[in-house]
Amino acid sequence: MSSSVLQSQSGDNRLSPDNAVLLMIDHQAGLCQLVRDFDVDVFKNNVLALADIGKLFKLPVILTTSFEKGPNGPLVPELKAMFPDAPYIPRPGQINAWDNPDFVAAVRATGRKKLIMAGVVTDVCVAFPAVSAMAEDFEVYVVVDASGTFNPVVRDAALQRMVAAGAIPINWFAVACEIQRDWRNDAEGLANLLAKHLPHYSNLMQSYNQQGPAK
Amino acid sequence: MSSSVLQSQSGDNRLSPDNAVLLMIDHQAGLCQLVRDFDVDVFKNNVLALADIGKLFKLPVILTTSFEKGPNGPLVPELKAMFPDAPYIPRPGQINAWDNPDFVAAVRATGRKKLIMAGVVTDVCVAFPAVSAMAEDFEVYVVVDASGTFNPVVRDAALQRMVAAGAIPINWFAVACEIQRDWRNDAEGLANLLAKHLPHYSNLMQSYNQQGPAK
Amino acid sequence: MSSSVLQSQSGDNRLSPDNAVLLMIDHQAGLCQLVRDFDVDVFKNNVLALADIGKLFKLPVILTTSFEKGPNGPLVPELKAMFPDAPYIPRPGQINAWDNPDFVAAVRATGRKKLIMAGVVTDVCVAFPAVSAMAEDFEVYVVVDASGTFNPVVRDAALQRMVAAGAIPINWFAVACEIQRDWRNDAEGLANLLAKHLPHYSNLMQSYNQQGPAK
Amino acid sequence: MSSSVLQSQSGDNRLSPDNAVLLMIDHQAGLCQLVRDFDVDVFKNNVLALADIGKLFKLPVILTTSFEKGPNGPLVPELKAMFPDAPYIPRPGQINAWDNPDFVAAVRATGRKKLIMAGVVTDVCVAFPAVSAMAEDFEVYVVVDASGTFNPVVRDAALQRMVAAGAIPINWFAVACEIQRDWRNDAEGLANLLAKHLPHYSNLMQSYNQQGPAK
Amino acid sequence: MSSSVLQSQSGDNRLSPDNAVLLMIDHQAGLCQLVRDFDVDVFKNNVLALADIGKLFKLPVILTTSFEKGPNGPLVPELKAMFPDAPYIPRPGQINAWDNPDFVAAVRATGRKKLIMAGVVTDVCVAFPAVSAMAEDFEVYVVVDASGTFNPVVRDAALQRMVAAGAIPINWFAVACEIQRDWRNDAEGLANLLAKHLPHYSNLMQSYNQQGPAK
Amino acid sequence: MSSSVLQSQSGDNRLSPDNAVLLMIDHQAGLCQLVRDFDVDVFKNNVLALADIGKLFKLPVILTTSFEKGPNGPLVPELKAMFPDAPYIPRPGQINAWDNPDFVAAVRATGRKKLIMAGVVTDVCVAFPAVSAMAEDFEVYVVVDASGTFNPVVRDAALQRMVAAGAIPINWFAVACEIQRDWRNDAEGLANLLAKHLPHYSNLMQSYNQQGPAK
Amino acid sequence: MSSSVLQSQSGDNRLSPDNAVLLMIDHQAGLCQLVRDFDVDVFKNNVLALADIGKLFKLPVILTTSFEKGPNGPLVPELKAMFPDAPYIPRPGQINAWDNPDFVAAVRATGRKKLIMAGVVTDVCVAFPAVSAMAEDFEVYVVVDASGTFNPVVRDAALQRMVAAGAIPINWFAVACEIQRDWRNDAEGLANLLAKHLPHYSNLMQSYNQQGPAK
Amino acid sequence: MSSSVLQSQSGDNRLSPDNAVLLMIDHQAGLCQLVRDFDVDVFKNNVLALADIGKLFKLPVILTTSFEKGPNGPLVPELKAMFPDAPYIPRPGQINAWDNPDFVAAVRATGRKKLIMAGVVTDVCVAFPAVSAMAEDFEVYVVVDASGTFNPVVRDAALQRMVAAGAIPINWFAVACEIQRDWRNDAEGLANLLAKHLPHYSNLMQSYNQQGPAK
Repeated sequence: MSSSVLQSQSGDNRLSPDNAVLLMIDHQAGLCQLVRDFDVDVFKNNVLALADIGKLFKLPVILTTSFEKGPNGPLVPELKAMFPDAPYIPRPGQINAWDNPDFVAAVRATGRKKLIMAGVVTDVCVAFPAVSAMAEDFEVYVVVDASGTFNPVVRDAALQRMVAAGAIPINWFAVACEIQRDWRNDAEGLANLLAKHLPHYSNLMQSYNQQGPAK
Repeated sequence: MSSSVLQSQSGDNRLSPDNAVLLMIDHQAGLCQLVRDFDVDVFKNNVLALADIGKLFKLPVILTTSFEKGPNGPLVPELKAMFPDAPYIPRPGQINAWDNPDFVAAVRATGRKKLIMAGVVTDVCVAFPAVSAMAEDFEVYVVVDASGTFNPVVRDAALQRMVAAGAIPINWFAVACEIQRDWRNDAEGLANLLAKHLPHYSNLMQSYNQQGPAK
Repeated sequence: MSSSVLQSQSGDNRLSPDNAVLLMIDHQAGLCQLVRDFDVDVFKNNVLALADIGKLFKLPVILTTSFEKGPNGPLVPELKAMFPDAPYIPRPGQINAWDNPDFVAAVRATGRKKLIMAGVVTDVCVAFPAVSAMAEDFEVYVVVDASGTFNPVVRDAALQRMVAAGAIPINWFAVACEIQRDWRNDAEGLANLLAKHLPHYSNLMQSYNQQGPAK
Repeated sequence: MSSSVLQSQSGDNRLSPDNAVLLMIDHQAGLCQLVRDFDVDVFKNNVLALADIGKLFKLPVILTTSFEKGPNGPLVPELKAMFPDAPYIPRPGQINAWDNPDFVAAVRATGRKKLIMAGVVTDVCVAFPAVSAMAEDFEVYVVVDASGTFNPVVRDAALQRMVAAGAIPINWFAVACEIQRDWRNDAEGLANLLAKHLPHYSNLMQSYNQQGPAK
Repeated sequence: MSSSVLQSQSGDNRLSPDNAVLLMIDHQAGLCQLVRDFDVDVFKNNVLALADIGKLFKLPVILTTSFEKGPNGPLVPELKAMFPDAPYIPRPGQINAWDNPDFVAAVRATGRKKLIMAGVVTDVCVAFPAVSAMAEDFEVYVVVDASGTFNPVVRDAALQRMVAAGAIPINWFAVACEIQRDWRNDAEGLANLLAKHLPHYSNLMQSYNQQGPAK
Repeated sequence: MSSSVLQSQSGDNRLSPDNAVLLMIDHQAGLCQLVRDFDVDVFKNNVLALADIGKLFKLPVILTTSFEKGPNGPLVPELKAMFPDAPYIPRPGQINAWDNPDFVAAVRATGRKKLIMAGVVTDVCVAFPAVSAMAEDFEVYVVVDASGTFNPVVRDAALQRMVAAGAIPINWFAVACEIQRDWRNDAEGLANLLAKHLPHYSNLMQSYNQQGPAK
Repeated sequence: MSSSVLQSQSGDNRLSPDNAVLLMIDHQAGLCQLVRDFDVDVFKNNVLALADIGKLFKLPVILTTSFEKGPNGPLVPELKAMFPDAPYIPRPGQINAWDNPDFVAAVRATGRKKLIMAGVVTDVCVAFPAVSAMAEDFEVYVVVDASGTFNPVVRDAALQRMVAAGAIPINWFAVACEIQRDWRNDAEGLANLLAKHLPHYSNLMQSYNQQGPAK
Repeated sequence: MSSSVLQSQSGDNRLSPDNAVLLMIDHQAGLCQLVRDFDVDVFKNNVLALADIGKLFKLPVILTTSFEKGPNGPLVPELKAMFPDAPYIPRPGQINAWDNPDFVAAVRATGRKKLIMAGVVTDVCVAFPAVSAMAEDFEVYVVVDASGTFNPVVRDAALQRMVAAGAIPINWFAVACEIQRDWRNDAEGLANLLAKHLPHYSNLMQSYNQQGPAK
């Protein structure tokens, strides 16, 4: 039963800098006010951590927004600033990003089959393109903690829907670790990212640095 | 494995004004007192939002009640008032609405295969007809936040049961967005619905309207 | 110790249509996005219920806002619409409404000593004027469920601070019942208010009405 | 400061079969639907446990209801059945039971100063007469787990209000133990009560009985 | 995929008085102390409700215990008293009831394929025989709210394990309704059961009875 | 108002090895099954940590039990083993330990006025003697996390009652630190205690020890 | 009773840049691992927000640590970096900072009576010096969300203890607003601080800036 | 569908001392600080209980760590002490233990196909090798309560991912019972383990022992 699910996640077919693309969908100033299944500080940190992962591993990144001139508001400025050269598709009306030809073209242009998706709100802006992409044989990794929505009941239903359709649920830390594979591949890059986005890991590093390497 | 699940949700086979019917099952004044997995204000809002979706998109709607002359009580008056011409089937005794021939006839009369279901209580009034309908090759979308029951443990078990049998869990906001597809299809209709049922979205609109369109 | 607290709440000194004034402080579209200690549907209902109490009992009502032309946003439109003739004090900068002479003058003009206060956010927009007013010998009733803030830890601290300083914590339902005193004083007015703002009470009324008066 | 609070709770002035009266206020079938700060099974058990305490220690008990012919509904039948001879005051309209002369007369007729109060809802049906009674120098013990209301925020505010005014918060188990004082005063009576209302204590007794007295 | 799951739950193959057997596993006085994923009052009520369902529909019932002479303690006395003639298998040591030949023989003797299982603790006393029975082609309905264990994390894992292996999660209320099928099949029997085990439903009945049948 | 509260906690009047006595009340195997406001592992750890504090600082310790031959069960064996020479008062029936003359005599024999109290259950076995002792001018420190009861609602009510009567709420870690005063007073003793009872502190020590003293 | 509490918080005696000092106590890399009553991201944000308040209003700030060469670890580096010139008192052993003469001298040197205190852990590093300082007639404002400890039960007990002794509980946002008093006193400074530490306020500002000033 | 899942868990193919190996992955002093989905006391107990199961049933045990000389810190000392002779693989950089040839070799050397896995953090250190091992036809039992991570959202996503790929979720108590199979196989060994790691079971044993065998 689960053999295909397994094959897409194991051996050399794991997430890597060469086979994945990061899709940041509708992280807009207005829409983010709807997110209530995470504390605001936690959600901001998670979204920026995922973006930093995109930067660290030089993943292709695609940004898109929905109706950004209206109440949904502009893309949060940090994302725009981090990826000035990424394809940026302000959708004129399509709710499902996969209904926008420019967005799909940008995804296909990367030549990659593994889509790392996060967005606001999970049940619509993530779930819709996730289902559409899987129907066209893409593999979808849903970043559960960089996607937000109204409440945990809605989030759980959205995840159940996507997982039943074949999506792989994952969190930003696991995305980072799966792509990194080995601490020896630029340990400093990963360490900096963790120090910035995991305060308890940063504290471990402070204590460690105070005392120098283990005996 | 999940290919059939995917096919029923993607491309032109998504929820639309032309392929779905809305079933409101046993939202009765007495039975609603049993609902404790949602705050009362939240649940009322969710049920009325789903009903407004039925109206906005002119979906065929079917209402049914169980034993309404007894302690279960009458249908909540808002639903009756909103759909005066919808088929209304007060079931004389069948607990599973699908056991009532008039109800099934009303569903079949719509000629539609996609059933959007919500009801009280989730584990019985929704789960029973959901399983029965799927056994006759209907596709069932369970609206998790417009269905209520005794507590979260019961809700989760009912959803697990239905999802394992093939049902698609969804929330009212996602139903609205999936049918709307594009903001440009009557943006005002959807905006009004959201303003009415999402106080934080309404607040976004107030702030936006105060200042006029984005520069 | 508690004798003065008791005297201000008992006998003929209870909240009444003749001795209380309702202060609605900074319920603005932007600021309301900060409120996360209540579900959005619940909070909206609570605020409007309190406003309806003001209307039902013809209490003097005073509205005020903070910096409403900026990100804090305009007063939520329902409040403006309900009290078109109430004193409305858009504060040019004072965070504590009690620092605004027009606001204090409006309160003093009512000649009343019992202040029913609600606002956003609890720890600032309610707590600051509450403390200031009590220092000038007003009695403060803080409506805990029509005031909102960042999270329960902050709310609890704000309430502890106000209660230690002599404030009386209360909820909108208790405000209504304390002023009503006896169901026979316009039972229909109160019943309508409860039916509108307490869905479970509305359900009780539906079931009751279906069957007529008790035998 | 707290010396008077202490004096009323210590030495020979503790709750006893001879100095306390039990007031059961508005435990009506309709009003109980509003109670959401306790699970329904838990709340039912707590209320009946408190009533059994009244019976076991032969406390004077006074029953009262609010508007029982309307949606508030009749007194729950178990209470009526347990205390057929207790004063029963169906209030024609007064929300605060202490505003009803028959109720106050019934309390005064017992000649007791310690009032054990429980009711639905905590913030009104308990808090109002509690404050009124304390203003007339009665001592009030609020049974927090046999009183119910809309949600924990409201409950906590109501308790803060009553405690600031001098009330003593207590739970049914502590009421039983304080009156019992010594297991040797009818150990079987108390044991039966605990076995009936504390399933985990009942389980202890089963295991114990299987094996006989400790060696 | 889910066609077999569906077939076993629909049409004439639903739970009925003629095709199901109720297995009550290890509800012992000692073991019940380990149950912490439900409030004690709630759990007791759920277990007795399920037992009453067995009685009401005259289901064959099988009782079993594990090591009842030791700390696990005796079967809770209510179950013993309700089913004096049911097969009762005190297992001398087997943890998985399905490893006990007498237990399996008792199940097979009923000639039924649908097993309604509840027990303490969920992850062992329910999960083990559930998996074993399914491997021998029985259908297993796990009553999630009449089974208890250490905490929700363990419960969820146990349910995930059983559901992945084909078990149907259900709650006692849904068991009752699925077997009842139609209120007209002995409405009084079901009503009595609900009145006894659902306090809020009992309250609905009280209010209803006070007023007589709907107009 | 709070000057006396302050004086009893500051300067040389703080908890010290010379002015405090530790009272462990009714931590019995049966009664501990009733404790549900703490996870079982957490509660066990807290109780033993407090006992270790008694040992570390050579505080006089007094043990007492209620009805230990019945279902309440024996004192948990760890406490008996740790304090073989402490006064041990198995109360024949008094629920309030302060009603037992031997217990009070044991307390008075220490000549100390500061009572550190913990027990099962908080609302009875702690609250009753706490109130009684304060009425006789003892100072009571209630160890909130080494005392347990039925649920958080009951715990909070019990603490409100005791605090209103003058008790000082405290946790075991704060007891240890207040008595220790300065790390330089036997740092190793305190460090060992923390390593044993605070797994996260133990982890800090492991990491630290691996690397040696800070540079 | 509460008149002194009121006087210290009202009129010209409120927190201001001229009358308050900020004490940051034991925010060390190791000790922060013990904090579990706040999410790590939330706590980090709260602590840095309070520090930024110190900077914005040029409050005197005093830093102190406990045993920083051992497992408690170094001060978190952000605080050190922000206040390079602040008095920094690494305590050699005193657990209560008020027992350290250098710390008290630094406080007294500011000539200020209002102490804004935050620290790790709340029940010890904050509660001890809070009680000691109040005994010497300082006024203590405890910043509840920039202080952390083991769990909410411990936090609540520590706050109850401090409030009973006269401390004023407050949160970082209220500290900022109380000192700011009027938006017109450097609105930009406060706005920047809020944008940095309140993601939902930052989103309001983004949406606002997109559209320009209100009409 | 689920037949293979069933076959691997039933009959003679259940977990046994002869077919399973226990993998303890990255339980390091530093990494454990990141675990926030369990209380620290609970998690420590769970991990040590699982280790004791390995000892009791003489399972082959394999220990591994990630980057133990850096901030991740050393293996918690209890595990090292319990299994001095177990293969111990400190990984020089591989995040997924399955990428380390020594680790895989150690697993293969046991000749066993059933892997009992626990680790820190669940979403990486457990999920990665779980997926890799299943892709090579091992059966994976994930011990959900001896594995820890950042928060419940992440844990649930990690479990969903692993279960979808075929893993069996289990808890330490169920592992013990499944391997034990029958109490008569060394009842004392299991009883000691339970007494040590289940305080409520230990209390049952104390009460039982006080009274001797059941009559």
